Amino acid sequence: MNALMPLGMVSVIPSENQDFFETSLDRVQEERKDYFVERDGQKFAGMHLLVDLWGASNLGDPDLIDRALREAAVTAGATILHSHFHHFSPNGGVSGVVVLAESHISIHTWPERDFAAVDIFMCGACDPHLAIPVLRAAFQPSEVKLDEQRRGLVD
Amino acid sequence: MNALMPLGMVSVIPSENQDFFETSLDRVQEERKDYFVERDGQKFAGMHLLVDLWGASNLGDPDLIDRALREAAVTAGATILHSHFHHFSPNGGVSGVVVLAESHISIHTWPERDFAAVDIFMCGACDPHLAIPVLRAAFQPSEVKLDEQRRGLVD
Repeated sequence: MNALMPLGMVSVIPSENQDFFETSLDRVQEERKDYFVERDGQKFAGMHLLVDLWGASNLGDPDLIDRALREAAVTAGATILHSHFHHFSPNGGVSGVVVLAESHISIHTWPERDFAAVDIFMCGACDPHLAIPVLRAAFQPSEVKLDEQRRGLVD
Repeated sequence: MNALMPLGMVSVIPSENQDFFETSLDRVQEERKDYFVERDGQKFAGMHLLVDLWGASNLGDPDLIDRALREAAVTAGATILHSHFHHFSPNGGVSGVVVLAESHISIHTWPERDFAAVDIFMCGACDPHLAIPVLRAAFQPSEVKLDEQRRGLVD
């Protein structure tokens, strides 16, 4: 007998019916297995955007940054698993990451230079480009430099 | 009176002497303020390596991956602030991030394709290239594709 059954952690539904009762985590696990995508005739693991924001505001506010990155993730179609933000001092920079079922978003800010470096790595059906307008609204940069990399590109 | 004083969380040392008693976090905060680096005649925020590992092993073992990324961070001269790893299923991929005082390392693995996408973003005096041999030892890839970006490059 499975030791986890008394804790209610194992389904007793016959296996052939389990796909009707799968949890959202099960769905994430299943989707994770075929995250290589095919687009424009190329097959790759995911799209990785490197976004440099210049002339930006709100770069010393970890709560605002947390909300902005979460909104950016959801707007791009991603599922948030975990987030962590670190504030280096009351008026200093913020480093943060949002771990997604579809990879991650990170940010590092230098408020004294009105500069932030964001990277958005997303697999599956997500569109990381949809996150950019959310970043623009939150940080109001005067300039955005965008670099796009297809990670895991199959030759 | 500061409410935190009874808990011993506020120093009562006169402010002019506090630099002799600063905590390691204080040091991180101070260092964070001038992380833009100058190298080869260029001024930028930090070096961002995008590392694609092909033909790699151990990609479904979150504990090994956690240890490898921590060793990679320390070998590169970085200070670890936080780490988080997510295992998508017993035989599935791992997503993880290590947040550093000098930015971050992330990994996303596709064991079914022997592929992992790593990114290493480091500011200050760290050398992210020193992390690569640690990744090679841990994951034994048959091929490594490396892309180097200087984030926040000042024109």
